[in-house]
Amino acid sequence: MKVIRVGLIGTGYMGKAHAIAFKTAPAVFPLSAKLVCEMVAEVDADIAAEKAEELGFNRSTGDWQQLVNDPDIDVVDICSPNYLHKKMALAAIAAGKHVYSEKPLALNAADALEMTLAAEKAGVKTLVGFNYAKNPTLQLAKEIIEQGELGDIVHFRGTFNEDYLADANTPFSWRLKRQFSGSGALGDLGSHIINLAQYLIAPINELCADSQTVHVNRPLNGQPDQYDTVENDDQMHMMLRFANGAIGTIESSRIAWGRKNSLWFEINGTKGSLIYDQERLSELQLFKPEGPSDRHGFKRILTGPEHPDYQHFCVSAGHGLGYNDMKTVEVRDLVEGLAGNKPLWPDFRAAYSVNVILDAAEQSCKDRCWITVDRDAQVLPKNNKKSVQSSDQ
Amino acid sequence: MKVIRVGLIGTGYMGKAHAIAFKTAPAVFPLSAKLVCEMVAEVDADIAAEKAEELGFNRSTGDWQQLVNDPDIDVVDICSPNYLHKKMALAAIAAGKHVYSEKPLALNAADALEMTLAAEKAGVKTLVGFNYAKNPTLQLAKEIIEQGELGDIVHFRGTFNEDYLADANTPFSWRLKRQFSGSGALGDLGSHIINLAQYLIAPINELCADSQTVHVNRPLNGQPDQYDTVENDDQMHMMLRFANGAIGTIESSRIAWGRKNSLWFEINGTKGSLIYDQERLSELQLFKPEGPSDRHGFKRILTGPEHPDYQHFCVSAGHGLGYNDMKTVEVRDLVEGLAGNKPLWPDFRAAYSVNVILDAAEQSCKDRCWITVDRDAQVLPKNNKKSVQSSDQ
Amino acid sequence: MKVIRVGLIGTGYMGKAHAIAFKTAPAVFPLSAKLVCEMVAEVDADIAAEKAEELGFNRSTGDWQQLVNDPDIDVVDICSPNYLHKKMALAAIAAGKHVYSEKPLALNAADALEMTLAAEKAGVKTLVGFNYAKNPTLQLAKEIIEQGELGDIVHFRGTFNEDYLADANTPFSWRLKRQFSGSGALGDLGSHIINLAQYLIAPINELCADSQTVHVNRPLNGQPDQYDTVENDDQMHMMLRFANGAIGTIESSRIAWGRKNSLWFEINGTKGSLIYDQERLSELQLFKPEGPSDRHGFKRILTGPEHPDYQHFCVSAGHGLGYNDMKTVEVRDLVEGLAGNKPLWPDFRAAYSVNVILDAAEQSCKDRCWITVDRDAQVLPKNNKKSVQSSDQ
Amino acid sequence: MKVIRVGLIGTGYMGKAHAIAFKTAPAVFPLSAKLVCEMVAEVDADIAAEKAEELGFNRSTGDWQQLVNDPDIDVVDICSPNYLHKKMALAAIAAGKHVYSEKPLALNAADALEMTLAAEKAGVKTLVGFNYAKNPTLQLAKEIIEQGELGDIVHFRGTFNEDYLADANTPFSWRLKRQFSGSGALGDLGSHIINLAQYLIAPINELCADSQTVHVNRPLNGQPDQYDTVENDDQMHMMLRFANGAIGTIESSRIAWGRKNSLWFEINGTKGSLIYDQERLSELQLFKPEGPSDRHGFKRILTGPEHPDYQHFCVSAGHGLGYNDMKTVEVRDLVEGLAGNKPLWPDFRAAYSVNVILDAAEQSCKDRCWITVDRDAQVLPKNNKKSVQSSDQ
Repeated sequence: MKVIRVGLIGTGYMGKAHAIAFKTAPAVFPLSAKLVCEMVAEVDADIAAEKAEELGFNRSTGDWQQLVNDPDIDVVDICSPNYLHKKMALAAIAAGKHVYSEKPLALNAADALEMTLAAEKAGVKTLVGFNYAKNPTLQLAKEIIEQGELGDIVHFRGTFNEDYLADANTPFSWRLKRQFSGSGALGDLGSHIINLAQYLIAPINELCADSQTVHVNRPLNGQPDQYDTVENDDQMHMMLRFANGAIGTIESSRIAWGRKNSLWFEINGTKGSLIYDQERLSELQLFKPEGPSDRHGFKRILTGPEHPDYQHFCVSAGHGLGYNDMKTVEVRDLVEGLAGNKPLWPDFRAAYSVNVILDAAEQSCKDRCWITVDRDAQVLPKNNKKSVQSSDQ
Repeated sequence: MKVIRVGLIGTGYMGKAHAIAFKTAPAVFPLSAKLVCEMVAEVDADIAAEKAEELGFNRSTGDWQQLVNDPDIDVVDICSPNYLHKKMALAAIAAGKHVYSEKPLALNAADALEMTLAAEKAGVKTLVGFNYAKNPTLQLAKEIIEQGELGDIVHFRGTFNEDYLADANTPFSWRLKRQFSGSGALGDLGSHIINLAQYLIAPINELCADSQTVHVNRPLNGQPDQYDTVENDDQMHMMLRFANGAIGTIESSRIAWGRKNSLWFEINGTKGSLIYDQERLSELQLFKPEGPSDRHGFKRILTGPEHPDYQHFCVSAGHGLGYNDMKTVEVRDLVEGLAGNKPLWPDFRAAYSVNVILDAAEQSCKDRCWITVDRDAQVLPKNNKKSVQSSDQ
Repeated sequence: MKVIRVGLIGTGYMGKAHAIAFKTAPAVFPLSAKLVCEMVAEVDADIAAEKAEELGFNRSTGDWQQLVNDPDIDVVDICSPNYLHKKMALAAIAAGKHVYSEKPLALNAADALEMTLAAEKAGVKTLVGFNYAKNPTLQLAKEIIEQGELGDIVHFRGTFNEDYLADANTPFSWRLKRQFSGSGALGDLGSHIINLAQYLIAPINELCADSQTVHVNRPLNGQPDQYDTVENDDQMHMMLRFANGAIGTIESSRIAWGRKNSLWFEINGTKGSLIYDQERLSELQLFKPEGPSDRHGFKRILTGPEHPDYQHFCVSAGHGLGYNDMKTVEVRDLVEGLAGNKPLWPDFRAAYSVNVILDAAEQSCKDRCWITVDRDAQVLPKNNKKSVQSSDQ
Repeated sequence: MKVIRVGLIGTGYMGKAHAIAFKTAPAVFPLSAKLVCEMVAEVDADIAAEKAEELGFNRSTGDWQQLVNDPDIDVVDICSPNYLHKKMALAAIAAGKHVYSEKPLALNAADALEMTLAAEKAGVKTLVGFNYAKNPTLQLAKEIIEQGELGDIVHFRGTFNEDYLADANTPFSWRLKRQFSGSGALGDLGSHIINLAQYLIAPINELCADSQTVHVNRPLNGQPDQYDTVENDDQMHMMLRFANGAIGTIESSRIAWGRKNSLWFEINGTKGSLIYDQERLSELQLFKPEGPSDRHGFKRILTGPEHPDYQHFCVSAGHGLGYNDMKTVEVRDLVEGLAGNKPLWPDFRAAYSVNVILDAAEQSCKDRCWITVDRDAQVLPKNNKKSVQSSDQ
């Protein structure tokens, strides 16, 4: 049996989520290859050693470049802050390693494209951690749409709202600086719902966005009366036109009090509708005008063993999957992709398409106009914005 | 006790809803005047007589102008199709009658303004039937916001979706022609949520909208293989900037399968959030970060006698009000306004402000740009649109 | 057109609810007779006059016996406290009047039977105000069950919980004394869910009940440090065996914090299930294992014009009916029944069957054993309890 | 670091769930000992070998007695059918091994007591797989109750309903024979909700139960026109009196169409209420009459890192745990218990108390009377039933 040796860079909460999935996946799924948790890299050798012990990896290093170049690493797993993704991925690709990176892939589309082209040229495989798309409930949504059960899709309304920065007194962090994080709610949360919108409906052709930073200054942690300036958006929304003719909106906020994981969408087609709310991630609401009309209603489907991937976790319907289970499916995809049996999705190119939308949204907020998305651009030219306006303007 | 004699024009489902409310209101509320259901006007004298009998009115006429000019009518209640509101209201105003009109007030803002100015000049009182704002649950929402319980309001997301035209085979009707109905989902449904947005948050300063007609041709009822062309929007959405600094979105659709009365909104403030769904019209969900954070959660408030107006309907909480009850509150407002005790809201001027938004939204859809709303215009000038766009700024 | 002149005894909140329905029903429904609000009786002539004015009745009296014997009264509507129902109903029957009484019909089954036999002998018509059964949503539930859509019904779980006495400091009232109110939560709330259980499923053949008074002493209103002793149950539940073979449970509580109108049931049949929650009284949840099993789920049906009676209130689905609308349907039934067109339900005999269950439940609580319900008894004999116990009996 | 070597007997879906948890727990939690998946026993050596490979165990055997007596096994994990629990546990105890057994512990209380006494005498540690009690949401419920936030608990209504046998054509299986499974819905599902009731409220002192087998004959799989007779209950309910004075009901059904995992309860106390529905296992609804009464409502708490154990799975609130995560917490408890740091719960004695209730419920169904639970009995005597009945009986 083929062996896949993983090198993990970064052991914050996302690194830990990956580690859990590496341990869990082989117990849940029959895998085509044996996963080995080989090496951990952290900013410091001591921390790395401690984390390797804690997370069940064989070796550790305080130098991520050593990990990237280690001959016994097959795939480099990047769980570092966003601004480091590019540098690490390019190094891994240069070393001929497959790359499994957290999202968003890069701070902007140009970087994402550079990474994509490098990986494609090197012939290494890539996977980006848009884990929510791996939820069996969302695979079911995809199946329902692809089988035409909703007819032609005509509308999408999606949100991804949380409240982790709703309190004006929550201290400043690296996420609030553009150089480290890129955009705010847009990139951090919006990237997930953008990825899902394009996955479930069609590529986004045009958009018009607006955004706002509500809490402009935040206190510096442990430094009384000291504040720093927030550089990216607290809340954002945009109107969309999809390639299939559907229209829609996307919204994301990190200041929506009470929302903890409100990745929410409603999809309307000519033959039915779907509703999903990730705070209840094992439910899907489906409306189809079937049978006598006085018995119509939204149907609450609880995900179960008849739906994609669920049976490997549990044989009984409605018993519920959790956050980490989605990562487990993602790792199964990684293993099967690397073992050669199926294509990986979303790879760098798919993730690049999300970065293109993020950039277009920021451009639209700045220019206050509709933007035509140029998905075929090899690099995003400075002048690519083509606002579609009335003929006389 | 003062007497208020009502003349009702139009006895379709909305006319009947008014008639129910005229009968119910005096039993529910202590009123400052006595309501008399005096006269009904319909397109034909026989129908009018039959409807007067059915709805409990004293007299009837086949000529609405006769009703408008009858000396024993104090207030003219206009429940005719939208395109007739203007003509009838102007006639009633000319005859010195108070006017109670269904929404939307007019087919466009210019007409609405003309009606508003006429009423103000004549000194008659006016009320427009945005009945949903009368729901005790929404009065509670207003109270919560006004008392600052949510802090500064920073975001509004509202929809009003139904599925009454979701079936492509639903026959053509007058609502689908611009000359009779004006815009489609925007005017019919969107006007309600626009009214609520401005009522609950603040006037809308800027907007950018998009819309779509999905089912372009519809069969003519009873005429096999004959179709007519739909002239207005099946679905519409817009981004908003409010006068208080909040941003938001509004959506309306008449083709959203499964949605029967989905007037839905979520409001985020700096200190809390509110959610309302009119399919559960006696519930309000409130989140406030009070007390220990491990006990936080959205609270589902069931409207009861401690909330505005509810106690007149029922002494027990959670027993539920219905669609007609909101009209009953509206009629109470009408009576109290005409009896001189309180101002009427929404009057023609407030309804005009909704028409201004409807026009701006249509302009924005056409021009594909942001529109600055000119609320102070006496008439909407052709050149008022100030799209805020890219390159030249 | 026939005229039905109503005499209303009692103008508390229930009397007002009746008055609202008398005014509303003719506007909502096409009725076979003309309703006249003729006379109000109250404990005092002045109060009666004031209430007649307020509720829109022609005449008033401080002596209910005068009302009962007035030749211009066709139906006596009894909205007085429970302990007075019997005396007033018997007087009305003796005067040859039809009787419309609030529930529970009597303080015990023997009284209810006496009233039933008197009405049947006199040939007057009767109706008892189990208004919740009139909800279009519950009429739909009945239709679904009767058409066999759920197969054979095998289980019923019903509750009717509120929290109006959950606070230990809520003052003493007449409802807490057996001589005025009979049982507590059992009779006040439980009677509704018992009526529904027998309406929707089948007569109850056997039961075993338990109950409890949690707050035994309550403060006397306005009398510091004075308490009185609560004589009836705060919470009650029972196990049931129905005549059709189904089993089930019923629970009612007046101290269930947070429950405002939780008349709730779940019904399981061999082919499907139903769920109803009166805090959302225009929704019914239906599960039928139809179509592919990976699309199964509870369907949330919003009541609309295709369901019983709804269309008279509103032409659009999902717009919601309220508490008073159920009384309006009840009054329509009263009018149609008295006008000769249809049987009245629930009449005194049907209401008597609820009192039989209430008595059996109290007996079971006292004797701590199963009780076989003797529905055919003309009077409930002292020794009718037949506890079904272990094999040796 | 101490090492704990697990021997797993049985690799059906429950054995797999344990295996997943053995792999996941060390990645999720900091553990006080190292878990080693040492050996698998199955009915056949080949199957055992295959399963050991699949589930990640070092060794395998076709003879469970060999596993039990293997010197390199520290804890025997019993995931075999219910009727084998006793034999295997006694053998493991005799071999001085700790025992981790699935629920229900035994087919009756006498067996459970024998197992309990054996374990206590041998001084081995035990844990029984009532995994649902390990849910952080339920640990939160426990905390809320223990801190007195609900005041005195006065009522509990719990269900555990599924529909895995709702279809009359679902084939016969071992679960339907008393000798292999004991009772039906009562033991399989009811044992969970009984365990929770005693965990959250208090020991059960008295009960009165009823049950029913609805589908008496079921087809034999693969044998056309052949049927076998179902020997245990399809649905069951009981009334309870708890040691703290609270009353309540419990219901379980395996034929409740549409219910997939409806372990549901509502708890009322003198100061508040709690609602839990395991189909939404990361939510808890809490009502407390705090603050102004016009802002009261049930609060929907989404479990998060501030609640017990959650933070080890995820740092963000509301991201949702799943079915397998509860087993992971259970395995953490196992490890910490065996490593000496904390008591194990529920151990055999606690599980025995569930079996006592199961037996009492069956007795009550048979004798149709109230049963006083004799929790202190060392063995359940034949004549322990003390039906509490009316004085003259």
